Amino acid sequence: MSVVELRVRYQETDQMGVVYHSNYLVWCEVGRTQMLREIGMSYREVEAAGIYLPVHEVNCYYKKPAKYDDIILVKTVAKNLSGVRLDFDYQIVRKEDKQLLAEATSCHVFADDNGRPVNIKKKAPHLWKLLKAELSEGC
Amino acid sequence: MSVVELRVRYQETDQMGVVYHSNYLVWCEVGRTQMLREIGMSYREVEAAGIYLPVHEVNCYYKKPAKYDDIILVKTVAKNLSGVRLDFDYQIVRKEDKQLLAEATSCHVFADDNGRPVNIKKKAPHLWKLLKAELSEGC
Amino acid sequence: MSVVELRVRYQETDQMGVVYHSNYLVWCEVGRTQMLREIGMSYREVEAAGIYLPVHEVNCYYKKPAKYDDIILVKTVAKNLSGVRLDFDYQIVRKEDKQLLAEATSCHVFADDNGRPVNIKKKAPHLWKLLKAELSEGC
Amino acid sequence: MSVVELRVRYQETDQMGVVYHSNYLVWCEVGRTQMLREIGMSYREVEAAGIYLPVHEVNCYYKKPAKYDDIILVKTVAKNLSGVRLDFDYQIVRKEDKQLLAEATSCHVFADDNGRPVNIKKKAPHLWKLLKAELSEGC
Repeated sequence: MSVVELRVRYQETDQMGVVYHSNYLVWCEVGRTQMLREIGMSYREVEAAGIYLPVHEVNCYYKKPAKYDDIILVKTVAKNLSGVRLDFDYQIVRKEDKQLLAEATSCHVFADDNGRPVNIKKKAPHLWKLLKAELSEGC
Repeated sequence: MSVVELRVRYQETDQMGVVYHSNYLVWCEVGRTQMLREIGMSYREVEAAGIYLPVHEVNCYYKKPAKYDDIILVKTVAKNLSGVRLDFDYQIVRKEDKQLLAEATSCHVFADDNGRPVNIKKKAPHLWKLLKAELSEGC
Repeated sequence: MSVVELRVRYQETDQMGVVYHSNYLVWCEVGRTQMLREIGMSYREVEAAGIYLPVHEVNCYYKKPAKYDDIILVKTVAKNLSGVRLDFDYQIVRKEDKQLLAEATSCHVFADDNGRPVNIKKKAPHLWKLLKAELSEGC
Repeated sequence: MSVVELRVRYQETDQMGVVYHSNYLVWCEVGRTQMLREIGMSYREVEAAGIYLPVHEVNCYYKKPAKYDDIILVKTVAKNLSGVRLDFDYQIVRKEDKQLLAEATSCHVFADDNGRPVNIKKKAPHLWKLLKAELSEGC
């Protein structure tokens, strides 16, 4: 599991006085980028190698609202790895009181720069090994 | 069903050359606002009456990418109405070729300005009637 | 002058209960895209031709706050055209009461896909003619 | 001068492959929030005390594009303090190569929760003292 910390920006709030719901998905992006970095796989370099991880599906369950200036922990784990697919689970937690604010999942496919599916085992075996090593429960 | 049209903004794209995935949720917001307006229930006035519709859960399935300058149709239907809850289904369609780009669902609770659940049947019977009339498949 | 209409999204508000200030710049983008379209110059096609209009400078003066669900008019005029540069002035007006909410200016350079300046007179004479015809005060 | 560090999010890029220009203003918000925090003035608490700092004017000059995953330093200084006004200057710098990417200024007024100007010397003398101490060049 990877953990990354961020602070809620004023821009992320809405007139309900809490964080607008779609911003949690951006925080998930920050979380999975950090997770990939920690296993030695900078997503910037992944794209430079011609491999993309477009989002195929997202789910997010909102439990408690995040507020302006809160320090947020994004906890990310990868799952469901195959040659053509990778999913992530996220927990969005407020640091101060350890309150779980939201839980999310995103599902991704490996694609080339035209959006066509690629098999990462063949296209980028070094990335495959890094991911495989991280996911004991992988497939 | 309500349909609202919007055009993809440059700001909504990302370096993959397509619309960043969380923006589809913003388009869903535009869709449900329009649906509520069409049944005579301006969400601005709903909030002015002290009732809020925070998002409890969202799901979005991405099928084809939206691109800059595309004209997008957001098709919205309400469902699962009860005194304390209301859900919406969305279809995100590109106008030009009628391509279905994404399907989404959002689940909402009725809340007061402190985020506490309220029963709209009691708190705002006129809004309840408007929603009830719209949803033949109601609860 | 070009005029385009948009409606304020909930996502664009912040906890002050008004539109977050950086969103006005996005509306300016909507305005200049529309202006270019009206003179026969789809910015999508401009980019497809390998010409980009990155922003070099922006100024925005906020007079009255835009609010959720307001219908906004973005009035755009082009100015300061040269082979390597193009600027735009914007007025952001609330439709209902004709209130001027903000005034902005953006300055752009013509660039290639590596961000290097190009002279549009040479690189895309047909676009130069379209712009020149629009700007009587051009240079 | 205050310095805060952030990493460019994928969501902040656009299809030009660089950060969309309006996001620099959000980074400036992060910068001034940090500066206020460092002088003992949490903006969250400022608002809780009924004082707001709406943006009256912004200027931003873009010199070099920020890119995905860049680590950015936002350097913020306050200036032009009076009882009713406060401005900030910002430098947006890429950490890796110390490249200056953008320079910006934002001008703010002190306002109450209805957006009416207030004199912070009277309304919140403790905040006035904190700011006055920070700004030797104050007025």
